[in-house]
Amino acid sequence: MATQTIAADALVHHFAATRARTLVLAEPLSDADATGQSMPDASPAKWHLAHTTWFFETFVLRDHVPGYHVFDPAYHYLFNSYYDGEGDRHARPQRGMLTRPSLDDIRAYRAHVDAAVLAAFPDAARNLIELGCEHEAQHQELLLTDILHLFAQNPLAPAYRAEAGQSISAVAEPLNWIDGPSGVVEVGHDNASFAFDCEGPRHKTYLAPHVLAHRLVTNAEWEAFIEDGGYSRPELWLSEGWAWARGESISSPLYWRDDNAFGLNGLHSRKPAEPVTHVSHYEADAYARWAGARLPTELEWEAAASDPRLSQMFGSLWQWTGSAYLPYPGYRPAPGAVGEYNGKFMSGQMVLRGSSFATPLGTSRLTTRNFFPPTARWQFSGLRLAKDV
Amino acid sequence: MATQTIAADALVHHFAATRARTLVLAEPLSDADATGQSMPDASPAKWHLAHTTWFFETFVLRDHVPGYHVFDPAYHYLFNSYYDGEGDRHARPQRGMLTRPSLDDIRAYRAHVDAAVLAAFPDAARNLIELGCEHEAQHQELLLTDILHLFAQNPLAPAYRAEAGQSISAVAEPLNWIDGPSGVVEVGHDNASFAFDCEGPRHKTYLAPHVLAHRLVTNAEWEAFIEDGGYSRPELWLSEGWAWARGESISSPLYWRDDNAFGLNGLHSRKPAEPVTHVSHYEADAYARWAGARLPTELEWEAAASDPRLSQMFGSLWQWTGSAYLPYPGYRPAPGAVGEYNGKFMSGQMVLRGSSFATPLGTSRLTTRNFFPPTARWQFSGLRLAKDV
Amino acid sequence: MATQTIAADALVHHFAATRARTLVLAEPLSDADATGQSMPDASPAKWHLAHTTWFFETFVLRDHVPGYHVFDPAYHYLFNSYYDGEGDRHARPQRGMLTRPSLDDIRAYRAHVDAAVLAAFPDAARNLIELGCEHEAQHQELLLTDILHLFAQNPLAPAYRAEAGQSISAVAEPLNWIDGPSGVVEVGHDNASFAFDCEGPRHKTYLAPHVLAHRLVTNAEWEAFIEDGGYSRPELWLSEGWAWARGESISSPLYWRDDNAFGLNGLHSRKPAEPVTHVSHYEADAYARWAGARLPTELEWEAAASDPRLSQMFGSLWQWTGSAYLPYPGYRPAPGAVGEYNGKFMSGQMVLRGSSFATPLGTSRLTTRNFFPPTARWQFSGLRLAKDV
Amino acid sequence: MATQTIAADALVHHFAATRARTLVLAEPLSDADATGQSMPDASPAKWHLAHTTWFFETFVLRDHVPGYHVFDPAYHYLFNSYYDGEGDRHARPQRGMLTRPSLDDIRAYRAHVDAAVLAAFPDAARNLIELGCEHEAQHQELLLTDILHLFAQNPLAPAYRAEAGQSISAVAEPLNWIDGPSGVVEVGHDNASFAFDCEGPRHKTYLAPHVLAHRLVTNAEWEAFIEDGGYSRPELWLSEGWAWARGESISSPLYWRDDNAFGLNGLHSRKPAEPVTHVSHYEADAYARWAGARLPTELEWEAAASDPRLSQMFGSLWQWTGSAYLPYPGYRPAPGAVGEYNGKFMSGQMVLRGSSFATPLGTSRLTTRNFFPPTARWQFSGLRLAKDV
Repeated sequence: MATQTIAADALVHHFAATRARTLVLAEPLSDADATGQSMPDASPAKWHLAHTTWFFETFVLRDHVPGYHVFDPAYHYLFNSYYDGEGDRHARPQRGMLTRPSLDDIRAYRAHVDAAVLAAFPDAARNLIELGCEHEAQHQELLLTDILHLFAQNPLAPAYRAEAGQSISAVAEPLNWIDGPSGVVEVGHDNASFAFDCEGPRHKTYLAPHVLAHRLVTNAEWEAFIEDGGYSRPELWLSEGWAWARGESISSPLYWRDDNAFGLNGLHSRKPAEPVTHVSHYEADAYARWAGARLPTELEWEAAASDPRLSQMFGSLWQWTGSAYLPYPGYRPAPGAVGEYNGKFMSGQMVLRGSSFATPLGTSRLTTRNFFPPTARWQFSGLRLAKDV
Repeated sequence: MATQTIAADALVHHFAATRARTLVLAEPLSDADATGQSMPDASPAKWHLAHTTWFFETFVLRDHVPGYHVFDPAYHYLFNSYYDGEGDRHARPQRGMLTRPSLDDIRAYRAHVDAAVLAAFPDAARNLIELGCEHEAQHQELLLTDILHLFAQNPLAPAYRAEAGQSISAVAEPLNWIDGPSGVVEVGHDNASFAFDCEGPRHKTYLAPHVLAHRLVTNAEWEAFIEDGGYSRPELWLSEGWAWARGESISSPLYWRDDNAFGLNGLHSRKPAEPVTHVSHYEADAYARWAGARLPTELEWEAAASDPRLSQMFGSLWQWTGSAYLPYPGYRPAPGAVGEYNGKFMSGQMVLRGSSFATPLGTSRLTTRNFFPPTARWQFSGLRLAKDV
Repeated sequence: MATQTIAADALVHHFAATRARTLVLAEPLSDADATGQSMPDASPAKWHLAHTTWFFETFVLRDHVPGYHVFDPAYHYLFNSYYDGEGDRHARPQRGMLTRPSLDDIRAYRAHVDAAVLAAFPDAARNLIELGCEHEAQHQELLLTDILHLFAQNPLAPAYRAEAGQSISAVAEPLNWIDGPSGVVEVGHDNASFAFDCEGPRHKTYLAPHVLAHRLVTNAEWEAFIEDGGYSRPELWLSEGWAWARGESISSPLYWRDDNAFGLNGLHSRKPAEPVTHVSHYEADAYARWAGARLPTELEWEAAASDPRLSQMFGSLWQWTGSAYLPYPGYRPAPGAVGEYNGKFMSGQMVLRGSSFATPLGTSRLTTRNFFPPTARWQFSGLRLAKDV
Repeated sequence: MATQTIAADALVHHFAATRARTLVLAEPLSDADATGQSMPDASPAKWHLAHTTWFFETFVLRDHVPGYHVFDPAYHYLFNSYYDGEGDRHARPQRGMLTRPSLDDIRAYRAHVDAAVLAAFPDAARNLIELGCEHEAQHQELLLTDILHLFAQNPLAPAYRAEAGQSISAVAEPLNWIDGPSGVVEVGHDNASFAFDCEGPRHKTYLAPHVLAHRLVTNAEWEAFIEDGGYSRPELWLSEGWAWARGESISSPLYWRDDNAFGLNGLHSRKPAEPVTHVSHYEADAYARWAGARLPTELEWEAAASDPRLSQMFGSLWQWTGSAYLPYPGYRPAPGAVGEYNGKFMSGQMVLRGSSFATPLGTSRLTTRNFFPPTARWQFSGLRLAKDV
């Protein structure tokens, strides 16, 4: 999964900071907010807080700290996510039924586990602790996407934080097309520092000549797509995408409300120059076809990612690619339960690259492979265009 | 709906007591507990608190108190239940998404409305106030059935109140069969005091000779039914009931857990002499067939209800009858939005008679017609047998 | 089920005529027509031909004719309908998959069984033969309703028979209201001749004063209902009916097509004076409420049925009543597998009375209780109004 | 779509032979057999016969033969498959409702269109005629997979042809691993002869070192997988595959029946050395993981396909690959309605390579990309293993 790439002191600090940041993210939430589950694909905030803790309790404390006293034996069942190797678990769509334990109970659980990890900090589990921090970073972003989805169901349109979500950089410049690397290039993670197993191994690939848009597609451009009938012209859509859009009556990005958009800062006026977000892969693909372009492949994206002429690659929005989430040549899952982390999801998912404004700093890599089904809209997802040349 | 049958002073007292009792029922609940919705048929406790308040705010204050200042205009949309005459409303299965307003917000809403009602207490709305109290009494029981259902989804099996649910009288005596009235009898409410519109008009009916069991069916008797293959013998079941029981894998009352039962007092040892509860109409009907008997009709039940030889008629469990919920001869719904209270539900429902331990004192009448679909199990429902003679 | 009420010779004739009539009904059908199944509630014509034959083969030949040679052992599984007492059976929604045996194979099956029944004609099974004929008469009508539903799915709108369906008597007269019998009356079958078990026992009931419309509701009247917003005014509908009509986008009778209607004779111009048909109970109930009336109860209908001032009681359309299909006082199902015929369906169904133009002559009785779910529209169903007085 | 690659005479012959072969395939079918539809993904045989004819009538005759007289205007609506550019069409799951037109009607439709095509044979449409033949060849195989699925629903287990399906070559030899080409290789169609648009353009790709199994996985090997708990060990499965297999109670290939298998020749004894078929991608992937191997990518397969050491590449079974069906670099759909042929399905599908015993001779290419969702089992699909080295 990860070679040991971080000094012990730095890791202690990283662990403490990661764990503290989650609590900060939960601050604006009431017990009820933290309990609600708006769809089976989303989880309650409380569950994110507990599950990330369960990860450390199980894989670090239970497995590497003799004599560790489990906080509550029932939690093992409640807060396992999908690790079949760890036995039965509470059904995902039922997570919102857990009005108990309370948010305060979960805070106490976190404190108990944090203290135990910091006290023991077992050398043999340092890789697992690092992995747990990366895992928690991912759940920090999911906590935000999930709470936004929950609040979006509420006719009162509550804001998560009035000042949230304002860090998406707007780039109003006309679109430039930048040559991407072509021929045989090397991609994938080299394992010299932390990465998830699916990011490697580093390998060669052959890229045909192509160009990439220097910035993301904007709200204004998406409005032009809508005005041109983008959501009602089947020839622009993949067949499954069209069926989905008809079936779900999709006619705009998920959180658009007339001329406004709903976000972590509540209902706000939509900015034309901001990158469009909360679109599915199907919508992104249709847009690209309408624009006479296509989505980049994930390896085109990665090969070009260090080019400074390209903007909004990280820290703005995740970017749909045209690549299915599949194993790289030579891929092997990590052994044990933590090996269930990535490989078993390599079906029915499309890759997103980059990172979003909600991705914790320091967890974005050139090689990061985010993935969601092509219908997913509640993530902080946008798109960048590409073209064959 | 109801003639004016209660003195103004008594009604003030009744209003205040009813409103206070709801708050007492909500005391053991956290904000999250009060927000959770475990199925579309159940509502969050918070919603019960708000909807009953909406009823007074809309039909008493808005309609009869000039100058009344609405607490929050958004609440009209959020807390209407099913009154089409009152316009659009928040979708029922989405009630559990309303993490805001908080339980405390709703308590403030209640205080605001209570103060306004008590200050104005408009004469012209006295019938509506009385109706609102009866309406709230019904929601008090639903609050308990719904919170029990929510807690039953939680693997931690939390108790609502440790001392709750212990008032179901156990009657261990052998079963006696009591003659019911036959020939032409009068049934239905005479409108001399409060009743829901569906309870009248008073009318004649013809009852064939029959006998009624003097007590409810017990847990011990139900266990015998199970041991005799009651849940796996199609000849005992109505065709739709059998399909339902197969489809849902029904093999015991809803909250039986091995030798225990889950209730408002949490998980507890099952008492053989207590009446069996949380069974559907389909199960009750199959049991009756197995026992060589049938369920009483609702009019047989009502005609016999004043007979002191019959026990557990009120205050124990609601009792499934063999009667579909349909209008009495001469029935006319009350005019206006409150007329949507009963008549429009006269389809696909079976009548339950009596009242349960959770029914507020003073709201049980000989003529009360409770009704639920034949699959409903989460109410405090039991059964009494009858036979043709 | 039935006392022996018919002479042997007459029964032989009745059997032969009934069996022959089914073949006549199947004459216009191709092998493919006879195989198609347009919804789970409908059955292929071929299946009707085979199942009615299975009934005689099983309950008459197998049970009462020693040495009878079963035509094909596989047919027992294929053509049992819902007799749990007869073991496993082919799933109902899968009936349309049976492209084999062919229609000719089934005709051969019929000939084999007919010959065997006529050769043996066992005295002990005479009641079963009579029951089988009544059973087949019911399936003859279902064959027509099901083939009409199948053809209605076909954009080519094929006609079953060009001359079919023209026997619905049109009664253009203004509506008269006729007093129905009231007080204690006797209803139900007296068992002196054939009847299904659910039609008895004969018993007393008490009817409140009421009037009945002397004719059925017409197409012209239904058009007025539509023009007055009948399908878009929730206050006219039962709550479940409204949800159903919204969910299914119901806005007219099932087979109305602009100014035409589709019927057994294909697409044809709609006659204003003809009784409206292919409406559900929910629509009939909403219409009645709109008209300031209600549907009659089944016992009001039966008590009045011999009154000659009432027209279109038989041979026109089945007439929805306001009664749920429930057992009469003292009802007991017939013993054995044939006892599954009626009683187990007494849930979730509404009663229709009378008979339709498609009901075989001689099978209509004053006491006949037809029953379907309140959403059913593909039967030859209409409505007659009633009112309290 | 296709450059002009075939002489006119040869094309006339190819057209006539293709059209004739379809009729031969339909010979064993009754009108009812040809009408039945066993699932939304399958089509009636009659529909295949008509749709392939519609293709020629629409794209050749209507578009290129002035004065052509359409056989029946209603057929345009009935027999369009998914060409949005050609307007509305009959819903796919409703195809089995079309008991009319009859099989004989469709044969007449074919004769009419065939005569018109042969009479006119417009030069400008030669590419479209060639495409139509390839299209029909695909439907010939689908006709067989669909009729097999229909017959498999029938408890009588009818055989399509007693002698069918015996051409799958059995290769009982121990498995050999053969080196596949690696480094930069060229793949994809070069457009010098007919190919579907998705097979090109020809392009370079980089393959990592790997080996391929010289033959397909056999029934005997699959039995070992089952005996080793293959269908009950989640660690072997992709997450979505596991959920699917649980949800659908999958525990063996689609048509295994105890020690037998159902095929076009009816129920027959399973041969251990024959390649396993009617498995989904999910099952194939799980098997490969169990075997310590993986599925080949489609480009590995293609790069190795001319190697004579590899057997069963064509004419045995389609072979699941580990590749999602996505566009090659530089891919552009053909213009017009025929451009809807491939590109719009590039979502949610996995590629199969090779061809099956049911694939018409002369329509297999090294570059052919067949594709189905990972759950599809009713095609003639098997698998070949690969490994990284």
